Amino acid sequence: MSADRLSSMSKEVKPDSISLCPLSAAAALEQELLCIFGTGDLGRSLGQRLLQTGYRVVYGSRRPHSCGLLPQGAQVRSHAAAAEPASLVFICIHREHYDFLETLAPHFKGKVLVDVSNNLKKNLYPEANAEYLQRLIPGAHVVKGFNTLSAWALQNGPSDANRQVYLCGNSAEAKEAVAEVATKLGFTVLDKGSLSSARELEDFPLQLFPEWRLPLRLAFGLTVFFFFYLLIRTVVSAYVEQGKDISFRIMASLANKVFPIVSLIMLSLCYLPGVIAAFLQLYRGTKYKRFPDWLDRWMLCRKQLGLLALGFASLHVLYTLIIPIRYYVRYRLAAATISEIRLNHTIPFDTTMAWRTDSYYAMGILGFGLYLLLGITSLPSVSNALSWREFSFIQSKLGYLTLFICTFHTYLYGWDKFLWVSGYTWYTPPGYMLSLVLPSAVMLLKLLLVLPCVDRSLTRIRQGWERSDPEDDSKNSLLT
Amino acid sequence: MSADRLSSMSKEVKPDSISLCPLSAAAALEQELLCIFGTGDLGRSLGQRLLQTGYRVVYGSRRPHSCGLLPQGAQVRSHAAAAEPASLVFICIHREHYDFLETLAPHFKGKVLVDVSNNLKKNLYPEANAEYLQRLIPGAHVVKGFNTLSAWALQNGPSDANRQVYLCGNSAEAKEAVAEVATKLGFTVLDKGSLSSARELEDFPLQLFPEWRLPLRLAFGLTVFFFFYLLIRTVVSAYVEQGKDISFRIMASLANKVFPIVSLIMLSLCYLPGVIAAFLQLYRGTKYKRFPDWLDRWMLCRKQLGLLALGFASLHVLYTLIIPIRYYVRYRLAAATISEIRLNHTIPFDTTMAWRTDSYYAMGILGFGLYLLLGITSLPSVSNALSWREFSFIQSKLGYLTLFICTFHTYLYGWDKFLWVSGYTWYTPPGYMLSLVLPSAVMLLKLLLVLPCVDRSLTRIRQGWERSDPEDDSKNSLLT
Amino acid sequence: MSADRLSSMSKEVKPDSISLCPLSAAAALEQELLCIFGTGDLGRSLGQRLLQTGYRVVYGSRRPHSCGLLPQGAQVRSHAAAAEPASLVFICIHREHYDFLETLAPHFKGKVLVDVSNNLKKNLYPEANAEYLQRLIPGAHVVKGFNTLSAWALQNGPSDANRQVYLCGNSAEAKEAVAEVATKLGFTVLDKGSLSSARELEDFPLQLFPEWRLPLRLAFGLTVFFFFYLLIRTVVSAYVEQGKDISFRIMASLANKVFPIVSLIMLSLCYLPGVIAAFLQLYRGTKYKRFPDWLDRWMLCRKQLGLLALGFASLHVLYTLIIPIRYYVRYRLAAATISEIRLNHTIPFDTTMAWRTDSYYAMGILGFGLYLLLGITSLPSVSNALSWREFSFIQSKLGYLTLFICTFHTYLYGWDKFLWVSGYTWYTPPGYMLSLVLPSAVMLLKLLLVLPCVDRSLTRIRQGWERSDPEDDSKNSLLT
Repeated sequence: MSADRLSSMSKEVKPDSISLCPLSAAAALEQELLCIFGTGDLGRSLGQRLLQTGYRVVYGSRRPHSCGLLPQGAQVRSHAAAAEPASLVFICIHREHYDFLETLAPHFKGKVLVDVSNNLKKNLYPEANAEYLQRLIPGAHVVKGFNTLSAWALQNGPSDANRQVYLCGNSAEAKEAVAEVATKLGFTVLDKGSLSSARELEDFPLQLFPEWRLPLRLAFGLTVFFFFYLLIRTVVSAYVEQGKDISFRIMASLANKVFPIVSLIMLSLCYLPGVIAAFLQLYRGTKYKRFPDWLDRWMLCRKQLGLLALGFASLHVLYTLIIPIRYYVRYRLAAATISEIRLNHTIPFDTTMAWRTDSYYAMGILGFGLYLLLGITSLPSVSNALSWREFSFIQSKLGYLTLFICTFHTYLYGWDKFLWVSGYTWYTPPGYMLSLVLPSAVMLLKLLLVLPCVDRSLTRIRQGWERSDPEDDSKNSLLT
Repeated sequence: MSADRLSSMSKEVKPDSISLCPLSAAAALEQELLCIFGTGDLGRSLGQRLLQTGYRVVYGSRRPHSCGLLPQGAQVRSHAAAAEPASLVFICIHREHYDFLETLAPHFKGKVLVDVSNNLKKNLYPEANAEYLQRLIPGAHVVKGFNTLSAWALQNGPSDANRQVYLCGNSAEAKEAVAEVATKLGFTVLDKGSLSSARELEDFPLQLFPEWRLPLRLAFGLTVFFFFYLLIRTVVSAYVEQGKDISFRIMASLANKVFPIVSLIMLSLCYLPGVIAAFLQLYRGTKYKRFPDWLDRWMLCRKQLGLLALGFASLHVLYTLIIPIRYYVRYRLAAATISEIRLNHTIPFDTTMAWRTDSYYAMGILGFGLYLLLGITSLPSVSNALSWREFSFIQSKLGYLTLFICTFHTYLYGWDKFLWVSGYTWYTPPGYMLSLVLPSAVMLLKLLLVLPCVDRSLTRIRQGWERSDPEDDSKNSLLT
Repeated sequence: MSADRLSSMSKEVKPDSISLCPLSAAAALEQELLCIFGTGDLGRSLGQRLLQTGYRVVYGSRRPHSCGLLPQGAQVRSHAAAAEPASLVFICIHREHYDFLETLAPHFKGKVLVDVSNNLKKNLYPEANAEYLQRLIPGAHVVKGFNTLSAWALQNGPSDANRQVYLCGNSAEAKEAVAEVATKLGFTVLDKGSLSSARELEDFPLQLFPEWRLPLRLAFGLTVFFFFYLLIRTVVSAYVEQGKDISFRIMASLANKVFPIVSLIMLSLCYLPGVIAAFLQLYRGTKYKRFPDWLDRWMLCRKQLGLLALGFASLHVLYTLIIPIRYYVRYRLAAATISEIRLNHTIPFDTTMAWRTDSYYAMGILGFGLYLLLGITSLPSVSNALSWREFSFIQSKLGYLTLFICTFHTYLYGWDKFLWVSGYTWYTPPGYMLSLVLPSAVMLLKLLLVLPCVDRSLTRIRQGWERSDPEDDSKNSLLT
């Protein structure tokens, strides 16, 4: 795109060129020269890719005659000589060495400087590298960009690594020029605004799953709590009261109680904020008031909560499926058969038991299947292929169905055990009962919300209607 | 892209501006002003994102002084005053309120109006919203677009939701201008032609898995049929003939017969249309005649058929793996051991049985593994990364291998049972026999197609050769 | 984008047109006429899509009056008449028929010819089709492109098939023009340089998993080796020494030994090259020397090695989970119970055994869960959504953790069996011992690398420091 624009920019720095007719503009494009400062990995990879795409590349180096392997076809000159003919200079240098660039300021006047640098840690410097560069060379148009890519992605084009290039800068024209180069290299460009966003861009490659932190901490906390709760109820109580060592149960039996409990709680935590938000909107009679911050944050990590819940559910499935090959289980089954023979009494077949356990397993399988479906549709490429209505159908309707089936699965597991006094070891309820509280509450609240009268109010509110302000129609006329 | 084009468009409406040299064009771009009518969710989100990307935004509102939270940095004016300085106006208003726009028609002359509206249902109005808008304001260039995005996607940029923006409109120049804005916001633009495509675009967010309907109905029908067929053969017949209640088998045993049967039939239905199409081409001696409509529709939902078949196969796997933890199975196994001891007779180990069952399980596992591979490669992001030859290798060659292995798995399951008269309860064949008909037929037909002589004819036809028309060589010379 | 550029190109061939003001440029764009030679599948699909996007299309044909179904709205003329008014001609003809184009050379002067042809096999011709075309018509600007798309993808726009269009050609201006058309059709354009890349582009649709070949061969070799190794150790030795036929074990027991062994070895082969590379860098004291070719190739197929390892691990999981439903296992378990009763001796419960086997299963489940996580994050759409640091955290940190857990799982399986002389049938160690060699070595080497002193040196080297060249600071100043 825009050979004329690039050439016009060149014009700015090469006043002698007369690129008025498109043909000569194209000719200029064919030999567009870009400059790269820095011959490290990133500089080399970038240069190689630029050469491959048809640009001419000149490197700026302190010692142009001894700087190792450079991509074939690239020239190397001193910094000043390299910057001279180019209208666009990539600064692939560590921030610590920026100060020498100040001496080159006159050479950079009116040029576009692309700051691709990253730092090793967050908040190492008071201002972003790109802002520092702009301050050093006020006459240049600094654009921050390309820093979220690895040298690997730069050299080989977009594939596994990020395809997206984020840009920011104060000059729209400079950003255009850089966007053009990025597009020609095969990347998709996303403009992040003025240079004040540079810090955000520089922090991006340093971030490590920020949106997963809260859900991961929650999952860890729940796992630890239920592990110790169940450890005390089963292993410790058996040891204290009967002197039996059943600690071998920790690795499989206990784990297979903790995982489903955490999974069910996480799944209901994934749907609870939506229900709370609906009640808040009903109470306020408008959707135009901001939710409290904690609710906003909670809403934003629903996907992560759901995926972690799916992970725990998968572990539960695997732990359940290995039950029959466990030594302990095989021993116990054989022992039961042997004692049945030795005592010579026949245990009759219990049809209710068969119905109940089979239903329990069937619910578990269906619930897990739906769980998996939710997980698959949350893969970026799958959700991209869905229309908004399809996405919300799956994540909301099928999501509640999953929650219902999984809760029902747990109720079937419990059956009438809640009546057995012996289950309440040391006056504590079994773990599965605790896990049922939250999902049952979420489903009750959701049931209230789908009552016709409540649903009608909520739909009106979500279409822009406001209770407090009945004479106002213009607001009602807005798209929702 | 194209600062000059945007500025030239502004020129059209602001005849006093003199933006001839590229530099001033860029300056104009830097402060490009866009207007948004409507301060609902979509209007606000769009405005926020536009401001973030560096545009100036002015909202048009009936009561500019009381329209709630708007993104910081945006201005609010009356509709006429807001539209005046902008060359591009986003109409984020419900269609019901379009009529007032007619009064503003003179202000819109030559401007680009972007209709982002959606309806609540299909076919609510005789013409598309955008066509209606164009009719109201004939002097403006109406472009339909952005309506497939959620307010969420608009505000936060492309991520989970659709990255693609569809545009249509009668003026190529107007579409260019809108495409530019969309690209700057980080979206990918797909031009869907003239404004007559507006209805299609407006229906898109309302559609709910249209391509899944037929396969889902088929799967449902097959499941219901085989459920009742097997219910009658097993549970009902046992009750009628022997008075035994084995209804507890419904939840697991019966389900685990229905699911694999439906899965195998669906998988063969996924490959049948391709075989039919090949025979049709052979019969017609050309590939340049259209297939009948039913075949076209069938071909288009092969992917969905295959994925549903995979879903049923996964349920079959899970149902099979829980067999040993089922109460009924444990009871039966213990009972068998006990009776063996009480009767004091030793059942000898049957090597053939061991070979057969292990082969049967091994085939099942390999088949399911290939099934999963097919499913994974049909994920959009994976199939995008494959070359055309790789994709067709997997979906065709590996697909037929999967069908073969799964059919073989079923034959191994059946073994010599088809000879046992006792299996034909009430003169009906067991379910697995019915499920073998279709896959066996598909594989036989496919076998015919890969015979060298048939394959040669078919390849020639697919390369453009036509039997009926031997003197015509120019056609043979075309790429296929 | 760039109506002016296209119009300027038209200008070149239509010197009478005066498209100076943008409005008339837009008008020119609105009716931009493209020519297609060839009315085969590709030509028709391309034409249909172009028409849909708003272009006018004229087909060139030998017999314009009898060339079958063409998209509605397209014109058909003789080749010369069709090429005349268009500045861009798509050549959708088989290479065998290129020679007639030579006669049209004068009509093509200065025009852009897009060669979309593919061959049926690699290396069929000494030069690429596009280079041949350029040689035939030196006056035209030949651009190779669109050939990686199927007719299906062309007609229906980018979806499941490749979204990316690769272009190469010697004229940047011509590539620009083609890139513009491709972008308007909804594709993403990747410039692959000059026309000498045409062969690479023509080979692309013919390639069949080139990067999977080495890993697949390796996996096949390892599988075959361990299959025969274990066959001899178990089945053959049992037959030779005890005359027992346990060949039925091949289908499940043996397979379930081969698969985990191959999986563990492949997983360690996936991490070994990284460790070797690190030691090489430490030894050389620089990262600026190229790795030997074999190491480079090995590094490039790590992802494929890992995914194959995951496939084998999944088979191992499924084979393990069907253990309790196998006839052989059920028979053996029942026989054990029966013999315990007949001999009237009670085997006591072994707590150590319970701990060990449960830990062994738990490690297996956790290891497989992490394995799956690695596999999911290597899906293109998921890895695209990760920052570079996140991707390397998962693939490196979690990868080593997976290797550790899986190795530990195998050690727990072995336990003290390495002390049992009876295990060394015919003086050969059991398979699982062989599988432990490589992962143990990889982890030992990795352990050396994370020692603080070694890690510090390596980090410095990776940041650009070079041991051999201490006076050189400019190199240290480069980004890494």
